[in-house]
Amino acid sequence: MTNYEICFQGEHYAFSEIAAKKFLGESAVCHPRESFEQVFQSVRKKKPLLGIVPIENTLSGSIHQNYDLLLENSVGIVGEVNLRIELNLIAPSGVELSEIKTVYSHPAAIGQCRNFWKSHPNIEIMPTYDTAGSVKIIAEQGFTEAAAIASRQAAEDYKMNILLREIEDYPENYTRFLIISTENINFGIPNKTSIVFATKHIPGALFKSLSVFFLRDLNLLKIESRPLRGKPWQYIFYLDIEGSMKEQTCQNALRHLEEIAGFIKVLGSYPAAK
Amino acid sequence: MTNYEICFQGEHYAFSEIAAKKFLGESAVCHPRESFEQVFQSVRKKKPLLGIVPIENTLSGSIHQNYDLLLENSVGIVGEVNLRIELNLIAPSGVELSEIKTVYSHPAAIGQCRNFWKSHPNIEIMPTYDTAGSVKIIAEQGFTEAAAIASRQAAEDYKMNILLREIEDYPENYTRFLIISTENINFGIPNKTSIVFATKHIPGALFKSLSVFFLRDLNLLKIESRPLRGKPWQYIFYLDIEGSMKEQTCQNALRHLEEIAGFIKVLGSYPAAK
Repeated sequence: MTNYEICFQGEHYAFSEIAAKKFLGESAVCHPRESFEQVFQSVRKKKPLLGIVPIENTLSGSIHQNYDLLLENSVGIVGEVNLRIELNLIAPSGVELSEIKTVYSHPAAIGQCRNFWKSHPNIEIMPTYDTAGSVKIIAEQGFTEAAAIASRQAAEDYKMNILLREIEDYPENYTRFLIISTENINFGIPNKTSIVFATKHIPGALFKSLSVFFLRDLNLLKIESRPLRGKPWQYIFYLDIEGSMKEQTCQNALRHLEEIAGFIKVLGSYPAAK
Repeated sequence: MTNYEICFQGEHYAFSEIAAKKFLGESAVCHPRESFEQVFQSVRKKKPLLGIVPIENTLSGSIHQNYDLLLENSVGIVGEVNLRIELNLIAPSGVELSEIKTVYSHPAAIGQCRNFWKSHPNIEIMPTYDTAGSVKIIAEQGFTEAAAIASRQAAEDYKMNILLREIEDYPENYTRFLIISTENINFGIPNKTSIVFATKHIPGALFKSLSVFFLRDLNLLKIESRPLRGKPWQYIFYLDIEGSMKEQTCQNALRHLEEIAGFIKVLGSYPAAK
């Protein structure tokens, strides 16, 4: 088995790294990066060949910055992995829940624990760059009235206590991650395709665009819209389709879409996550 | 003319307040609120009768929290207004650009000035709850190596200097605001309708849903998807349609949509912004 190298945003034991190891195996070498931009930049320079970025969460929705970065950077999607996100309230050992005055975490994790905030209105919320990084901040600064929301693995790594397990609002809390690369790396039989396109400014443009898939029995799995920069109130659309660009039906649909869309980019065909 | 009262998120001279006065006139009485949740809460209690919230920006995209709050709260949309967002770099008088070490602003404004950050990599970015509130922080704390990104009006109000005008990435930087209420207040002839719906879990559901409008020559102005909480990888859709629920065609389309959708809510028919 290949020992893959992959970069991710955050500190070690961030959910992105856990997802990378779920996808590539425990032997994968994971390189932390400060920002999503830096993940894309590294992958563009092939140092390393692979990157992983979260693209959507089943509670808080899409990570739009990564949709924008997929369009701006010449990298493709070569795989995807879904990870159940268990959010734990983590504090230095000996610190009790009643002593916590501030909780540090990534804004996405903060947004997935609304019920916890409602039942603890006196706790101050402090947004940070990363879930695992929040545990690191508390450890390094020696805070004693603070907690972080992060993975079980991050708590173990910093030898901290889990005060409360699974404080996310719903147990159905999954994040979908994309594996990106500039190389055409094969992780199995592709059966899912992601594209981005802008329609011409004509009536019914979106409907006509979706019809090219419907007319060929190609299922749409997701649609996401983003503003077209510089053209107020116009949009670009990201679609996930059940099918591969290796199949004639998909190729026909895309050729049909070219008649309607002003711009199309195929982001990749890859094996869908189980 | 009625002297309307309206609440908004942020401090006085936030863009939401400027938009409210553009919509209601300068005589409108504007009440600041700390969060979008509190704006919705106030409107639900009819104290005051009207609220204003940003829903999308032409550079940074939709404000998803407000889409979620529209669904969770029993309030309707009674109007909309578009405001050109001019972002200014604002510092205490006497402070020069070369002295600035930290810039405070709302994350949305920060995201609209990416070119400025690229050309000033040594400036530390400090996200806050509000653009005008950032000017207030600098004024109240007496910071001298800091600047804020906010409206011209906020600079004037706190007697600060504008160091750089219009630092947003594109001049085509508009925010669309919704006027919300529990009352059916009439601000003109309605010609735009916003709805939210969830499709049944059947193949081609989204395409079939959009067809009910296309088949009746009703233009779609915007589509936005959000995760359906508790049902991983299922989505709810927000649509803006050209037309009013007072018109038979719109009513027919919605009746047709009921055959396909598992859930529909009309958020309101209102006059479209010019």
